[in-house]
Amino acid sequence: MRLSAYFLPTLKETPTEAKISSHRLMLRAGMIRQSSAGIYSWLPLGLKVLNKIGEIVREEQDAIGCHEMLMPTIQPADLWRDSGRYDDYGPEMLRIRDRHDRDMLYGPTNEEQITEIFAGSVKSYRDVPQMLYHIQWKFRDEVRPRFGVMRGREFLMKDAYSFDMDFDGARNSYNKMFVAYLKTYERLGLKAIPMAADPGPIGGDMSHEFMILADTGESEIACHKGFVDNDWLETAGDDLQTTVDTFTEKYAATDEKRDTDAEAALGDDLVTARAIEVGHIFYFGKKYSEKLGAIVTDSDGNNITVEMGSYGIGVSRLVGAIIEASHDEAGIIWPDSVAPFRVGLINLKVSDDECVTACDDLYARLTTAGIDTLYDDRDTRAGAKFADMDLIGLPWQLAIGPRGIKNGVIEVKNRKTGERQELSVDDAMNLLGV
Amino acid sequence: MRLSAYFLPTLKETPTEAKISSHRLMLRAGMIRQSSAGIYSWLPLGLKVLNKIGEIVREEQDAIGCHEMLMPTIQPADLWRDSGRYDDYGPEMLRIRDRHDRDMLYGPTNEEQITEIFAGSVKSYRDVPQMLYHIQWKFRDEVRPRFGVMRGREFLMKDAYSFDMDFDGARNSYNKMFVAYLKTYERLGLKAIPMAADPGPIGGDMSHEFMILADTGESEIACHKGFVDNDWLETAGDDLQTTVDTFTEKYAATDEKRDTDAEAALGDDLVTARAIEVGHIFYFGKKYSEKLGAIVTDSDGNNITVEMGSYGIGVSRLVGAIIEASHDEAGIIWPDSVAPFRVGLINLKVSDDECVTACDDLYARLTTAGIDTLYDDRDTRAGAKFADMDLIGLPWQLAIGPRGIKNGVIEVKNRKTGERQELSVDDAMNLLGV
Repeated sequence: MRLSAYFLPTLKETPTEAKISSHRLMLRAGMIRQSSAGIYSWLPLGLKVLNKIGEIVREEQDAIGCHEMLMPTIQPADLWRDSGRYDDYGPEMLRIRDRHDRDMLYGPTNEEQITEIFAGSVKSYRDVPQMLYHIQWKFRDEVRPRFGVMRGREFLMKDAYSFDMDFDGARNSYNKMFVAYLKTYERLGLKAIPMAADPGPIGGDMSHEFMILADTGESEIACHKGFVDNDWLETAGDDLQTTVDTFTEKYAATDEKRDTDAEAALGDDLVTARAIEVGHIFYFGKKYSEKLGAIVTDSDGNNITVEMGSYGIGVSRLVGAIIEASHDEAGIIWPDSVAPFRVGLINLKVSDDECVTACDDLYARLTTAGIDTLYDDRDTRAGAKFADMDLIGLPWQLAIGPRGIKNGVIEVKNRKTGERQELSVDDAMNLLGV
Repeated sequence: MRLSAYFLPTLKETPTEAKISSHRLMLRAGMIRQSSAGIYSWLPLGLKVLNKIGEIVREEQDAIGCHEMLMPTIQPADLWRDSGRYDDYGPEMLRIRDRHDRDMLYGPTNEEQITEIFAGSVKSYRDVPQMLYHIQWKFRDEVRPRFGVMRGREFLMKDAYSFDMDFDGARNSYNKMFVAYLKTYERLGLKAIPMAADPGPIGGDMSHEFMILADTGESEIACHKGFVDNDWLETAGDDLQTTVDTFTEKYAATDEKRDTDAEAALGDDLVTARAIEVGHIFYFGKKYSEKLGAIVTDSDGNNITVEMGSYGIGVSRLVGAIIEASHDEAGIIWPDSVAPFRVGLINLKVSDDECVTACDDLYARLTTAGIDTLYDDRDTRAGAKFADMDLIGLPWQLAIGPRGIKNGVIEVKNRKTGERQELSVDDAMNLLGV
């Protein structure tokens, strides 16, 4: 992509309304613009990252046999009256009345909707177990939206739901999701720690929040330091329950689940830190299937009310969370897997024909090799170009100027390490793995 | 995908609430379920088609240098007060009041939002022209939602907007979109006819609706029969204006633009038919840029209010429109480009081990070859499997049964032509181009 034709309105000044790094950097890097409090437009660079995160989430859901669908944003109030939640849900629910004076709402979550769909479609044990998910915009009318996309009002979430014949089946679905979540966050370049969370009215041990450590996190967590130092996923083995046990046998608890005795016993192995929630999985049994009639017949012809679980990942929140976990003074440092472009190519002197030709040639070569490249061909001074590249945080910067051309080299910078090298074009391509 | 594990709740009975073929077939094929009037959940099969259509639309927008972004669904009323449309827009606009009693609305369109973003970001002629689009859910509170996804309340649209320094630039942007639309519909397997449409308050000839002929269409159009018989896109040449001229010099008009004299003059060359609108492009000049201050400086330092155009495609409506244009008594007939799977593989006798092995082997071979295959491995009778395959309309059906295995052949059916052949597995793979 040629930057001269792209829509990348970076800001030099730091927006005063932004209180945390990710919010400031997303505004400055031209990723988002506020529409109203807690509601954002995603500009091209931001949308690319959002889509890359969504795609990784999607692939790991598909990999465990969870099927993608899409529920609407606007739901009928009657469905929530049937579940008993319409009156329980507080002012965070955006309530709407349509032109025929029917009560509607902007979905803050989808248990009711998915249970209704399942109940209307599945009648036999033959079609169970089933896992369904969607990635859709939700709305929660936060009283004080803040921290940019981290606590917005309109936000993108992946919601998945599982349906099983019995508790053992539900546990198996839960375990599949548990491991899929670990893989998802690992691919996103995040160390997300599964922590025992409030199980809600159902009780039991099948409720985990996935937390990433960040100073700006809204909750204070405590965990065994092994979670911070180790990567148990690689050593956990193939068995699902063993993997889950590996991650759950050691202490890790969110705010509301912290245990003073357990923490005292850990001694030097205890870590306390601030953290951001980036996912929540929980089993809720027959809470909605009973109320909404999600009943199937088993192989003996008996009616069975299905067991359900709910599995959420905050996709738009993850954009902010990744930046909180990976940035420096100069800007964002994207993990390779979600970087909006892999390479930033800088023409240091657009008035120099030789320089233009060298840049155009390299751009063509990168593009042909399938490397998504943002090519800064603007008529701007070199300093501003380097600053913008650092700000938007692409993994590699390649810069070409008259001096380098004379010496047969280009400058290659790794955004994460800061390391700079002067390399021939061929060696630079090798470094990029092509 | 193994059908035994998929979520494909097909219906045997025809839903009585559905008045047109596409609505009936989408419900019966397990593509959608109604949530409330004019609002649908997209089940896995339906979502696959919706995404394939969206991807084709996206590629053709990207190809003309239009940049994808994403605006939110909920907009502040104040923005619409600034443009003067908040009071003008009728009861189709879904108006919302948030917990702080601020007036909001579910966006029925995005001229205001995009103009605000542009005005806040672009200040110089150097960053013009610019084209931006998004694919997002919109809401119009239709008084009588009907025809399934063809006239729903919550629907998916691609909206693009162009920004230019002057009228000539705006015409060039319009022409680019005009041709991109022709290519888009062609790739979707549709013959979409660009027709002169109501230009609105701006006047002029830069307003076209793209219509596809279908008996269930809501408007009565008239056009030169060349539009129905010919494919001018291939012969139109490389020059943008020439291509647009080729398509606009012959008579073609929607309801409100029909011209009795012009039609009389056409004689036998006149075709009148019912048609479905699947896209609308129009130039609207400075209507919003003036009111919302989208002003840039030109190279002489003068303030220029930018010229704008708007370009919509109904993505979710297209799912219904394609079915209206391509189905028979037995079900849907998907064009290759948007088929949810390319091949349906049917095991005619799941109790036969040899048959299972042959099907599993072919499924593995198809999958390895990159052919997206729906594998009906259910324990159901063959007749029901053939009926479901015809209903969901995959381009190719491959059926394997004990008799065929004995003879070393499988049955291959082309859904569109109905042609059946008995072929060896190798010949069948050849037929599929692998």
